[in-house]
Amino acid sequence: MKIPRSHPRYDSLVRRERLVRAWKAGIVVPEGLIAHGRGEAWDYLFGEMTSAPALVAERAAAAYLLAAARPVISVNGNVAALASREVVRLAKMIPARIEVNLFHRSEVRVRRVVRELERAGARNVLGLRPNARIPGIESKRALSHRDGIFGADVVLVPLEDGDRAEALVRMKKTVISVDLNPLSRTIVDELTRAVLNLCKFVDELKPDETETLRVRRVYNRNGNLGAVYSFLEWRLGRLRRSVTRGGMRSKSASQPSSVR
Amino acid sequence: MKIPRSHPRYDSLVRRERLVRAWKAGIVVPEGLIAHGRGEAWDYLFGEMTSAPALVAERAAAAYLLAAARPVISVNGNVAALASREVVRLAKMIPARIEVNLFHRSEVRVRRVVRELERAGARNVLGLRPNARIPGIESKRALSHRDGIFGADVVLVPLEDGDRAEALVRMKKTVISVDLNPLSRTIVDELTRAVLNLCKFVDELKPDETETLRVRRVYNRNGNLGAVYSFLEWRLGRLRRSVTRGGMRSKSASQPSSVR
Repeated sequence: MKIPRSHPRYDSLVRRERLVRAWKAGIVVPEGLIAHGRGEAWDYLFGEMTSAPALVAERAAAAYLLAAARPVISVNGNVAALASREVVRLAKMIPARIEVNLFHRSEVRVRRVVRELERAGARNVLGLRPNARIPGIESKRALSHRDGIFGADVVLVPLEDGDRAEALVRMKKTVISVDLNPLSRTIVDELTRAVLNLCKFVDELKPDETETLRVRRVYNRNGNLGAVYSFLEWRLGRLRRSVTRGGMRSKSASQPSSVR
Repeated sequence: MKIPRSHPRYDSLVRRERLVRAWKAGIVVPEGLIAHGRGEAWDYLFGEMTSAPALVAERAAAAYLLAAARPVISVNGNVAALASREVVRLAKMIPARIEVNLFHRSEVRVRRVVRELERAGARNVLGLRPNARIPGIESKRALSHRDGIFGADVVLVPLEDGDRAEALVRMKKTVISVDLNPLSRTIVDELTRAVLNLCKFVDELKPDETETLRVRRVYNRNGNLGAVYSFLEWRLGRLRRSVTRGGMRSKSASQPSSVR
């Protein structure tokens, strides 16, 4: 199906097609499709745009990644499907290593994800020959590389469940999550938009160590998340008006005709 | 994977497993998995419970279904996967006909969905030999039965996009949607919970024509949807507190450790 560029939800529909394609290629698992749907719903609530507080978190995250001694980007199936190019670009700019870590891990799937990243220009992607285990995780997601996530001081973990992130924090790493679920603790934004913004901020902050230090110092996680929620409340108010006043959405019709 | 009953999100995880199983059986399509994910995110925001306004909408819907001359329940792949038993029970109680209507229609998939419903006790399920077309729909979803959706006066359309519902409203039918997306126009609730509540209200209202009439008369769609949004605002406030005060969620860890 060809989606016209003029479609108001073009980006979202392209992402969905990309994901279904990656699922057919064995890169994404069914659970990944469901997880993507969750993101779609949140992004719909966000108006499919980066909120101001997300931008602030992204600028802070860029500062943390730049100041890191051993920064690593963790990539799973959905990340590879949605934003391989963008992740590889970010990794080169910082520079950071990339490590593939899968919840539903199989050797063949790791290899497919690595290949997808290589196609997008990545070199020396870690993940195939793990030589360490993250303590406190029972699943295969504990498998990691000493040169990669295991030895990192700052880890970017997009689209992950909290368990491994928590285990990484217990290892005294700085963990930067990216997720549209507003319970996510760092960047509450859509992955592709977030990574593109990270690239922009890395580019801006790289020559300016003083500003990079200042950005890290002033970043207030709780204040930032509070602002994310204020944004969501504002969006909910807009949706409410569009629904209860009617007319703005094609769905206005799916009501009992006799009570219209 | 065996999910322990004590798990705080047991119902949601069981539904997810059910859906993945139905996808393996060719009843659910990949797009259905993504759509289910969207529902999961909304339900998470709703606290995985039926809101008071959803209950009101469900009681009104039960009244409309009972008062109908030719009520029909439309079933797609996700509905069959998640709530075949419940839908068949509701259809028998009203009584209403069941018609299978698929967005990604193929003969073999219609047959699988029909069989799934029959396994749950349904008889004379429509959908395999459509003899009419709903005007204004270009896709195969226009295909319908004169004895079913095409000729119905009240149609329950769970988990549907708005287009077909709108076309049915243009045919002067009363259309009752069920969806967790708060832009849904009638019942904003999780499918299984909604259908079980419909059963309960059908049971309660069936012997009481006066009350059934009253319920239909006093139902105010806009007021009800407004209350749904008020509920969501309250929920968002709770989530905000759980995130910004920290501690309540395991995900509290997935923040940069240096800014904890």
